[in-house]
Amino acid sequence: MLVHSLCALHDGAKNSLETIIQLIEQRNKEVAVDVRQVPLSELDGWNIDENGSLIHSSGKFFSVEGIEVNTDYGEIRRWTQPIIKQPEIGYLGLIVKEFNGILHFLMQMKIEPGNINYAQISPTLQATKSNFRQMHHGRKPLYLDKFENAAPRQILVDQLQSEHGSRFLRKRNRNIIIMADGDIEACEDFCWMTAGQLKALMRMNNKVNSPARSVFSLLNIGGAMSPFDDTRPLSDFGKALLLSAAANHSLHTMEYILSWLTNIKSRYDLIVRPYPLNKMRKWHLQDGEIVHTDNKYFKVLGINVSIENREVSSWSQPVISPVQTYFCVLILKEINGILHFLMQAKLECGNYDIVELSPSVQCLIGKDGKANGYVPFFDYAAGVKPECVLHDTIQSEEGGRFYHDQNRYMMIMADEYFPVEIPEHYVWMTLNQIYAFLRFNNFVNAQARSLLAALPYI
Amino acid sequence: MLVHSLCALHDGAKNSLETIIQLIEQRNKEVAVDVRQVPLSELDGWNIDENGSLIHSSGKFFSVEGIEVNTDYGEIRRWTQPIIKQPEIGYLGLIVKEFNGILHFLMQMKIEPGNINYAQISPTLQATKSNFRQMHHGRKPLYLDKFENAAPRQILVDQLQSEHGSRFLRKRNRNIIIMADGDIEACEDFCWMTAGQLKALMRMNNKVNSPARSVFSLLNIGGAMSPFDDTRPLSDFGKALLLSAAANHSLHTMEYILSWLTNIKSRYDLIVRPYPLNKMRKWHLQDGEIVHTDNKYFKVLGINVSIENREVSSWSQPVISPVQTYFCVLILKEINGILHFLMQAKLECGNYDIVELSPSVQCLIGKDGKANGYVPFFDYAAGVKPECVLHDTIQSEEGGRFYHDQNRYMMIMADEYFPVEIPEHYVWMTLNQIYAFLRFNNFVNAQARSLLAALPYI
Repeated sequence: MLVHSLCALHDGAKNSLETIIQLIEQRNKEVAVDVRQVPLSELDGWNIDENGSLIHSSGKFFSVEGIEVNTDYGEIRRWTQPIIKQPEIGYLGLIVKEFNGILHFLMQMKIEPGNINYAQISPTLQATKSNFRQMHHGRKPLYLDKFENAAPRQILVDQLQSEHGSRFLRKRNRNIIIMADGDIEACEDFCWMTAGQLKALMRMNNKVNSPARSVFSLLNIGGAMSPFDDTRPLSDFGKALLLSAAANHSLHTMEYILSWLTNIKSRYDLIVRPYPLNKMRKWHLQDGEIVHTDNKYFKVLGINVSIENREVSSWSQPVISPVQTYFCVLILKEINGILHFLMQAKLECGNYDIVELSPSVQCLIGKDGKANGYVPFFDYAAGVKPECVLHDTIQSEEGGRFYHDQNRYMMIMADEYFPVEIPEHYVWMTLNQIYAFLRFNNFVNAQARSLLAALPYI
Repeated sequence: MLVHSLCALHDGAKNSLETIIQLIEQRNKEVAVDVRQVPLSELDGWNIDENGSLIHSSGKFFSVEGIEVNTDYGEIRRWTQPIIKQPEIGYLGLIVKEFNGILHFLMQMKIEPGNINYAQISPTLQATKSNFRQMHHGRKPLYLDKFENAAPRQILVDQLQSEHGSRFLRKRNRNIIIMADGDIEACEDFCWMTAGQLKALMRMNNKVNSPARSVFSLLNIGGAMSPFDDTRPLSDFGKALLLSAAANHSLHTMEYILSWLTNIKSRYDLIVRPYPLNKMRKWHLQDGEIVHTDNKYFKVLGINVSIENREVSSWSQPVISPVQTYFCVLILKEINGILHFLMQAKLECGNYDIVELSPSVQCLIGKDGKANGYVPFFDYAAGVKPECVLHDTIQSEEGGRFYHDQNRYMMIMADEYFPVEIPEHYVWMTLNQIYAFLRFNNFVNAQARSLLAALPYI
């Protein structure tokens, strides 16, 4: 369906990469952003209820509540933690349109209070149900009507995909990409970009926000369904990626992988129950923040935000602020002449369906650069030879809920000595097989999607 | 993978259909079954807690609890009801083996207390986690080790599929089919049957139990993946079915159907919260049963059971006893030269993922033969001309949780006057597309799977 020069970087692109980068910087200078921390108990419009949960006075938006997790997966079998609860499905939407024979994506230079650099490239539409039902009496999100009124033939991708499973409770968003029907004007702060430009921006630090990476990952670029035409020559790695995306040649059959996943989902219990935040032994309110006694994981802060040029220009909200950062690594290896991706079935307490396909390594690291306990492939990834590194960037998570949350995302091309035999929660998959799972709901987690979005073909 | 005469009815089958039917009847005569109703408060080993929930004294097995449902789907926006809670994934397993060049399934003549005729044909293995972790100190289920030790190459199908969404809360089972590795003896009460025999038995009333229908439905018989070889000639209907299962020719693309489903899942809220059973306005304890004030839906009873020849030979438990029965109808129609199935996206309170693909009609009917309120296609199905009826049987639901629960299952071949235009919660799908959804977890509900299992090729 996507047939034209998806990855054009310069020739025929409406805006050069340099222009786009300048636009982001300009947005940051022009728009006044003021974010100040306030004690959680003094957040305007938010109440702390009898369980210590943070609830908006409207009862809508989201809440931060306590849960108790019991599982027989992993070393820690029981814990309590705060988690974001937002039981509604939001929109993450992209509009695509052809200009000069090249597909362009309509991206917003969106400012979020939690972003370290305020403005990042975000999808055309990024709206919670509360947003688009106009709960907070702000402006109706731009372009919402284009998605609500899209004809079936315009819709390229339309799926429910998960949010971060350690911080959101069973949260999913509708990830949707539509072809423009007729002329579409880029409003102020919006800009048309090619897929090649988006991929180039994802190879830089903190330029493309987490929702944009999520929805962009669903474009099966290079696969059999979306021929990939670029005037520039493919790299050898690009050829290997296209082969892995298109060919039906793999170490394991799909039936094997489905059974492997079913077995893991059947074997492990994941029981999540509400638990009063103010009765947790390891988490407590201190100086207006909710913190972990060992100074691990994250804390919950309150912020007062004032931003020009948004639906609502000032508000207060709790945010999750990381104490440790994530290290997310995708390991690739050629097996039987075709590129395979090392995926793991990872259980996280907020997952919609127990486990999701996750990067080869996904773990928290402390200030000493070490993981909390033993993590397979961590040492390999942390000490890998520079010539094996395909991708190594810092990317931000959702700036509407997370505060200054930047994590390291890495892709490694493993050499012939890397083992084909792997532990039982891990599996080798081709890109073709990953796309088959991506097509259905919430099989591939947000961190894995972030990495897949950045795969370079050129 | 399944290559040999899947549907052989007589030639080469180890046992004739008549023999199998006799075996079931013999089982019923030989085994002493005694089921007596007792007041819920007097159930041995079960307690009624402060919320009115029925809990086993071990805290394991299952419980009957109260829920409050809030949704914006359908006419009733809020209700409370009792529901079965069993947060563990059980096994429904079939062993397949070739005899005389024909694949045979190892089926059990299993007696369940809720079955109207006690013995029905059930899968090789039908065990909850409590069963196979031997919570009730009974015998270890037969053949369990074959499934636990199956090599990947033996596994034909291995998926999580849902239970009835109006009576079980988010319950799923592992539906698995394995090829025998070497000799396997049929133990007492077990019998080898061909797929053709199973399909013939599903066209009779109350012979094949609900778990067997569920797991059998996952065999993509006739599809591109499992060539269908039968020495007997295909019927014209069988040809049309095979074409629908194999061809990539359909009214809608898979992307359209995925988007249609995503849209419905995104649009409707389904919020299910615990609610004390003993505080419900419309449900109350009366004469030792939990009943609905309007004498609708179902009631919850207590039974004392004594059965020879089971893991445990006597026990007590609550069961769900229907007050109304279900009418489940699958409407087929040729569109653009290929058979399409009319599926609906139905929201049920216990669904794992909001809505599932369900039969064209699935509704409760009262003693007057009428539905509770307006149900699309109900009048058409209830009054359809006999020559359009492909299948019309009474089938039992799971006799381990439901008491004398028999429902009418029907398949209709609609004529040219039946509309192609249908309401927005409905969609036309080919068998090929249904199989694509069946391959992944819990997209197709138990009632639809029951009907798909019985599709006749000959």
